Amino acid sequence: MTERREEKLLNVLRHRQSDLTVVMEEIHDPHNVSAILRSADAVGVLEVQLIYVKNKFPKIGKKSSASAMKWVTRRPFTSVESCYHRLRSEGFAIYTTHLGQGSKSLYELDLTKNVALVFGNEHEGVSEEARRLADGNFQIPMSGMIASLNVSVACAVSLYEAFRQRMALGRATLLDDEKLGKLFDEWKRK
Amino acid sequence: MTERREEKLLNVLRHRQSDLTVVMEEIHDPHNVSAILRSADAVGVLEVQLIYVKNKFPKIGKKSSASAMKWVTRRPFTSVESCYHRLRSEGFAIYTTHLGQGSKSLYELDLTKNVALVFGNEHEGVSEEARRLADGNFQIPMSGMIASLNVSVACAVSLYEAFRQRMALGRATLLDDEKLGKLFDEWKRK
Repeated sequence: MTERREEKLLNVLRHRQSDLTVVMEEIHDPHNVSAILRSADAVGVLEVQLIYVKNKFPKIGKKSSASAMKWVTRRPFTSVESCYHRLRSEGFAIYTTHLGQGSKSLYELDLTKNVALVFGNEHEGVSEEARRLADGNFQIPMSGMIASLNVSVACAVSLYEAFRQRMALGRATLLDDEKLGKLFDEWKRK
Repeated sequence: MTERREEKLLNVLRHRQSDLTVVMEEIHDPHNVSAILRSADAVGVLEVQLIYVKNKFPKIGKKSSASAMKWVTRRPFTSVESCYHRLRSEGFAIYTTHLGQGSKSLYELDLTKNVALVFGNEHEGVSEEARRLADGNFQIPMSGMIASLNVSVACAVSLYEAFRQRMALGRATLLDDEKLGKLFDEWKRK
């Protein structure tokens, strides 16, 4: 482990946003899953939540993007309820992405603190249960002929809006020293 | 053709941004190409530019995203030079996406008028020639372990930043009546 590598790890850990997370509900295409993990790493998401009941979490190919699997922790849940319960105990507000009435625009949301964004299966979208139990629903504005975006694209656009808002605020380190030190030890062994 | 369909077509055409375009240079993965066209449609890009010399433009599968092929015009070029020449004659400033020194951040760019964004091949990135002949280079800020984003994700994040800036300005119709009428006639026949 070179000094430069250690610095890189520390620098990335210092930018990890423990109060921004993604919930992946039944997203099955490995291209999508791997692009989502890569975007999550890029904006500093520390952990993502997985709800896979109907589908298995897909196998990720051994391409470069697979390495995002190393740097973004995945927490599996067996139901929407248990996932949301855990997130709420940690202070997260939970927003689903679903085209429908009463949705806010992505750009109206305050994404600068404690926010979990739920993205659903490619064909069925976010489940009715996940929508019903959430704190709100948002959509990404669109002005084209096609009614939806690719799910990994929707996730990236949302995460980067959070990142943009957080950069504008000049957000500081979020992990406390103990947690950062623990993760640093883990990451050095990867 | 129902009245509702005609209204939809007109509404989409009224939001088409003829002064925002994407240059796709040798992007070969059909998943990426199709996601890029879908994002372009979503933010109202009227036309994209294609530079394919080493690679062929890929065949796009017959999934839902394929329909973006219907609504986003593609202009093929046989060289970087001819593409840039045409874009400049139309008043576009041209920015490449490349990790490197002297790059601006995406969020520092004014994307509200006459701008062409160049995205390169998955493995090689934007060519040296395309970078050298451009007006500038930008990068999407990243704070993770992985050094790059998927190209369709990078394109979507950039296009949505342009869209966000344009929405904030309350941009009006861009196509003149003649052009809009001509496209409307074409689109009705699709």
